[in-house]
Amino acid sequence: MSTNRKELERAWSFDDVAIVPGAVTTNPQLVETKLKIGNHDFDVPIIASGMDAVVDTKMAVSLSSLGSCGVLNLEGIQTRYRDTDEIFHSIANADDNEVTSLMQKIYSKNIDTSLISQRIHDIKQAGGIAMVSATPQLTKIFAPIAKEAGVDFFVVQSTVTTANHVSRSLKGLKLKQLVQEMGSIPILVGNTVDYSATIELLETGVDGILVGVGPGAACTSREVLGIGMPQVSATIETSHARNVFFEKTGKYVPIITDGGIRTGGDLSKAICSGADGVMIGSPFASTIEAPGQGYHWGMATPHTELPRGTRVKVGQTHTLKSLLFGPTSLTNGTENLMGALKTSMATCGATTIEEFHSVRMIIAPAIKTEGKIYQINN
Amino acid sequence: MSTNRKELERAWSFDDVAIVPGAVTTNPQLVETKLKIGNHDFDVPIIASGMDAVVDTKMAVSLSSLGSCGVLNLEGIQTRYRDTDEIFHSIANADDNEVTSLMQKIYSKNIDTSLISQRIHDIKQAGGIAMVSATPQLTKIFAPIAKEAGVDFFVVQSTVTTANHVSRSLKGLKLKQLVQEMGSIPILVGNTVDYSATIELLETGVDGILVGVGPGAACTSREVLGIGMPQVSATIETSHARNVFFEKTGKYVPIITDGGIRTGGDLSKAICSGADGVMIGSPFASTIEAPGQGYHWGMATPHTELPRGTRVKVGQTHTLKSLLFGPTSLTNGTENLMGALKTSMATCGATTIEEFHSVRMIIAPAIKTEGKIYQINN
Amino acid sequence: MSTNRKELERAWSFDDVAIVPGAVTTNPQLVETKLKIGNHDFDVPIIASGMDAVVDTKMAVSLSSLGSCGVLNLEGIQTRYRDTDEIFHSIANADDNEVTSLMQKIYSKNIDTSLISQRIHDIKQAGGIAMVSATPQLTKIFAPIAKEAGVDFFVVQSTVTTANHVSRSLKGLKLKQLVQEMGSIPILVGNTVDYSATIELLETGVDGILVGVGPGAACTSREVLGIGMPQVSATIETSHARNVFFEKTGKYVPIITDGGIRTGGDLSKAICSGADGVMIGSPFASTIEAPGQGYHWGMATPHTELPRGTRVKVGQTHTLKSLLFGPTSLTNGTENLMGALKTSMATCGATTIEEFHSVRMIIAPAIKTEGKIYQINN
Amino acid sequence: MSTNRKELERAWSFDDVAIVPGAVTTNPQLVETKLKIGNHDFDVPIIASGMDAVVDTKMAVSLSSLGSCGVLNLEGIQTRYRDTDEIFHSIANADDNEVTSLMQKIYSKNIDTSLISQRIHDIKQAGGIAMVSATPQLTKIFAPIAKEAGVDFFVVQSTVTTANHVSRSLKGLKLKQLVQEMGSIPILVGNTVDYSATIELLETGVDGILVGVGPGAACTSREVLGIGMPQVSATIETSHARNVFFEKTGKYVPIITDGGIRTGGDLSKAICSGADGVMIGSPFASTIEAPGQGYHWGMATPHTELPRGTRVKVGQTHTLKSLLFGPTSLTNGTENLMGALKTSMATCGATTIEEFHSVRMIIAPAIKTEGKIYQINN
Repeated sequence: MSTNRKELERAWSFDDVAIVPGAVTTNPQLVETKLKIGNHDFDVPIIASGMDAVVDTKMAVSLSSLGSCGVLNLEGIQTRYRDTDEIFHSIANADDNEVTSLMQKIYSKNIDTSLISQRIHDIKQAGGIAMVSATPQLTKIFAPIAKEAGVDFFVVQSTVTTANHVSRSLKGLKLKQLVQEMGSIPILVGNTVDYSATIELLETGVDGILVGVGPGAACTSREVLGIGMPQVSATIETSHARNVFFEKTGKYVPIITDGGIRTGGDLSKAICSGADGVMIGSPFASTIEAPGQGYHWGMATPHTELPRGTRVKVGQTHTLKSLLFGPTSLTNGTENLMGALKTSMATCGATTIEEFHSVRMIIAPAIKTEGKIYQINN
Repeated sequence: MSTNRKELERAWSFDDVAIVPGAVTTNPQLVETKLKIGNHDFDVPIIASGMDAVVDTKMAVSLSSLGSCGVLNLEGIQTRYRDTDEIFHSIANADDNEVTSLMQKIYSKNIDTSLISQRIHDIKQAGGIAMVSATPQLTKIFAPIAKEAGVDFFVVQSTVTTANHVSRSLKGLKLKQLVQEMGSIPILVGNTVDYSATIELLETGVDGILVGVGPGAACTSREVLGIGMPQVSATIETSHARNVFFEKTGKYVPIITDGGIRTGGDLSKAICSGADGVMIGSPFASTIEAPGQGYHWGMATPHTELPRGTRVKVGQTHTLKSLLFGPTSLTNGTENLMGALKTSMATCGATTIEEFHSVRMIIAPAIKTEGKIYQINN
Repeated sequence: MSTNRKELERAWSFDDVAIVPGAVTTNPQLVETKLKIGNHDFDVPIIASGMDAVVDTKMAVSLSSLGSCGVLNLEGIQTRYRDTDEIFHSIANADDNEVTSLMQKIYSKNIDTSLISQRIHDIKQAGGIAMVSATPQLTKIFAPIAKEAGVDFFVVQSTVTTANHVSRSLKGLKLKQLVQEMGSIPILVGNTVDYSATIELLETGVDGILVGVGPGAACTSREVLGIGMPQVSATIETSHARNVFFEKTGKYVPIITDGGIRTGGDLSKAICSGADGVMIGSPFASTIEAPGQGYHWGMATPHTELPRGTRVKVGQTHTLKSLLFGPTSLTNGTENLMGALKTSMATCGATTIEEFHSVRMIIAPAIKTEGKIYQINN
Repeated sequence: MSTNRKELERAWSFDDVAIVPGAVTTNPQLVETKLKIGNHDFDVPIIASGMDAVVDTKMAVSLSSLGSCGVLNLEGIQTRYRDTDEIFHSIANADDNEVTSLMQKIYSKNIDTSLISQRIHDIKQAGGIAMVSATPQLTKIFAPIAKEAGVDFFVVQSTVTTANHVSRSLKGLKLKQLVQEMGSIPILVGNTVDYSATIELLETGVDGILVGVGPGAACTSREVLGIGMPQVSATIETSHARNVFFEKTGKYVPIITDGGIRTGGDLSKAICSGADGVMIGSPFASTIEAPGQGYHWGMATPHTELPRGTRVKVGQTHTLKSLLFGPTSLTNGTENLMGALKTSMATCGATTIEEFHSVRMIIAPAIKTEGKIYQINN
């Protein structure tokens, strides 16, 4: 037992910070934003979250064709139901007071492992990139099936919102063993938020780190569990670990900030904080192409004893293309995310993501009034 | 007179902080949350406050049967009236503008000391644990009566909201003397909020320390008196004193954070801050089993010259069991407190409360908008 | 020109801080709260501001009889009009859009110096304490008249809200000269907010220092001029200067915090910060006895070119006695200010104001929601 | 790649700070507020922004006659259309949902360079000061035309809101070359916010620095791009650079804070932070004389792919004269800006802007409630 008094450090979120431009800027068209995972380069450093309302096979293919990519959740609706249309329809049309119990019922159906192969085949056949996710407990069973089916990337994802436990295997030989068994298939793992946890994960040989507690808008971990870490500080800490690991080993493993990004400003701040890419849910859930039909929910929502998060109405407010590349007539930063990122980088004179990592950020909280964020810088 | 400028240190409350998960998590079923006071182990480290709207004899028995425990206030309605049904009914049905004077009248009736023995007997006979509380002034008279009646735990509780003064005896020999006179009956004492006050109390030989100024939602000490100490900082400071005292003496005295805990998140943060258990009022007052019939008030409310706090409508929104253990369909953390605590601990890889005390916490204020707490971590 | 970067220090206001109780408390009846100015002891360390809506001769007499005292403004309605009833009536009944120009007209009438003697005589004859105020420019003319008329205390008050300039005389010999000329009549001077300004003023030989920028609720200096200093920090700094000066000279000069105090909590924090007394306006303006008839305004309101502050409706919500001593059925701290102060001091074990100056305070911002201050400490 | 953890420093805005008065004040009439750029002295250190809704030729002339000055934007409506009345009328009368596309169309018309000379001639002929602005890309072409036409000041302005890139030339010889080519015509350049960028710009020989990201109310850079720097910190940093440069070279180059100033309080804080003058948009846009007819918009609003900011209704609420010099019956600081600045300086005993730079400021956030700023200092 320590006789030191517990010390608390301040941590920061997107709305707390701002990027500071210097004297030199550059042309947005000259900006390079590639995200490299394993040997694959993604032109768009934005990955769609492995959530049921965000990614189905069609969405995964559409994303791939745009230079991005989507994670198919192997423990959700896609692997419990062959025909999913009716399921999504019933969730979208449920009353608010019945939706939690409806989802508790829907998610109680067993996973059909044959659907794992099926979904991967469907994505590959349509020319898409197959990136799938499982929780640590089921990874042992699902990873070989996915490998057999020709998967491109495997994500071992354990968030506090799943209420599942990451077994101690994550720490030691077993994750190392998974890395070896999967061979050339890159493994992404998460979620983590601090320096030493990141160092531990990097030492197992994984190819990407997901950063953040909880998958964003559909999560209420903080109220229920008291757990949380603001994304800017989480990204700064884990990126610091990545740099120290790179310095030591020569291996550069991308940091992917997962959760809470809604605008071009958030995206730019995540990258400026040290991320190589981001994972987002809600903005994709609100595209016309998303399976959620204008609704979004987290994987902890249907938990039978301790549900967290709710079904959120996000609307179907833009196309995938206008979300990523514009053009847009909106002035609130929620569309043309790539245009915003490139303009932000160019304004700071950064032509690569690595250069953007060195750009200055300051603490300058935005003021939220009536649901709108006002800038306080002028 | 000091010629140094007065220095102010920042203090933190539940909404200001978040718990940071590390790399390793464990299974919530493996988590151990026992609270040991004297030689007694409570499975549920949550004690119901000694407030009239929260604990009567029936409530004390129900709580005991669930592994928890409730404090019976020896200076309230239970010891002033033999039949209390009508009293509670009149408070619950009073108009807002007459309730303060009604309570001033109700609480002006003299205490009938024979009811002290009666209430303790009733609890013991029904198999419950008898934990009772008195203010310092009346402890000298009531403690022997309670001992005689077979009480299990005695709480000497002096909060700022009672407007009674803790006599200087608390500091010196007299509390020591009480400890000796009560023999094997554990003495809990409070409320305190800072390091040196805790050390002083520990040196008298008491078996538990209550931490916090004011009993929670039913208290307005801050506006009236300017007095307050955020619970996270109070818990960190007093736990620090406990550790230093343990290091020196080998005696481990539990810290019980009393006040302001409404959700599983608050509970988890209190324990992570260093508490061994908590005392809560409002959440129990809003159970169907509570004597308050959907209302809650503090002991300073009926004060005749300087009333503080008001009768608060808390509703009768859950059963005692769903409050403590679920299951629940609510996603705001106000039910299944034990499930939330165990999940929170498991997520941080802590299998005991002692391990949870070492888990990292950060300062990351939650944003309150329209009465809802939003997490700012993603 | 300095080539150091300008540094900004954080300053704190009443809502930012809380008083921390220790282990020992005492009985409120044992608490001593005397304010000594010159050779006079006031039982109530609360002075009513020299504002037209707050103090007329009748109010000054009533305050004296209660152990308190009120400042009569020598440059307001009382010295411009013999019969003031109609004037106050017209202000209270003016429309919002005409009130500023009405006041500009009322305050353009010349001061009748014979009314200075008249008002002082009236107060003295009724057994009251005559404390009067003037701005620095008019002090030279008014002080001899007031002395001649038998004034008890003279306040040289120059706030930013008067838009009058404090002549450089305040700094040097001329204030010293005033002190000598007034003989045994104590001089209070202000307003000031920082350490070095206080030291300068103390060295002139004055008997009291008023602390604070602007006279409280009726002031908008901050928006118009950008000027301000939170009262807790201002009180800590100026009290520090008082202690250093006392250490050096053996002369103890009371610090009187002027502005922004609305509740017993604010009052307690001002005293705990180092003040020996306070000056308040709005709470007195809202007594039935106040001349303002339920309205309050600052002296800068009728300024013809740069009006600051407005007429504020404060209501007539309590008697002078219930404001100072209760009893009260309100639980928000706005009545029974002395009861609150004594309870607060007693709760911290302080029996004198000097002891209360040593009590710990912490930074713990209150959360304001829907116009109500919630305590964040539990 | 750095293996240091990224550090974030806190930055401050107008609402975060307050100016602290000392013991000595002076008479507002004695205060001197001249802004010197090159060899020209402006009595009013407030320049109107080079935005279409703010400055046309008539406005430029009116401003000059009052001792102030306005920047004519060479890339807006004034140089695209000979007759502008109809254009402004159509913008003012467009529906909210069509205004962005209408502006995208209006701003797609080519610039007619003959109008550059025309506008400058018009201003000069009416006795006004001709100050014009262009972005870095077009400066090479427009500067010689402007010089030929007899321009008085040339502003090279590149804000993040234009989405244009400042070419690397800003940094090196090319800006130096522009300075030489323009001869005795002073060059102002911006916008910048940090120390080292300011030093770089100063070394090119320019005669004024504009400070701030984005031109104020009509800008949403922060949400879209994540970019921002609060004005108080930006002014402190860049003024620090000015002082260091002056110490080294003996050349004093004025710092002009551009953006976010709405009240006399903001203006006073900008100057106290180190600025020699300010540039403001919205307050001028809301004068009866402004070309915008009660509306205001930024230059990034009509951007075709990434529009930022919107047309804002600002009203036509005062004359130019009442804005700058009063008199006013408003008490919120939005009129009589010069009266407020002089009173603020006088209250702090500063008779020159240089003296005001040394006055103390503290961090004391204003509380915004229901759209109103309340002062927290009392």
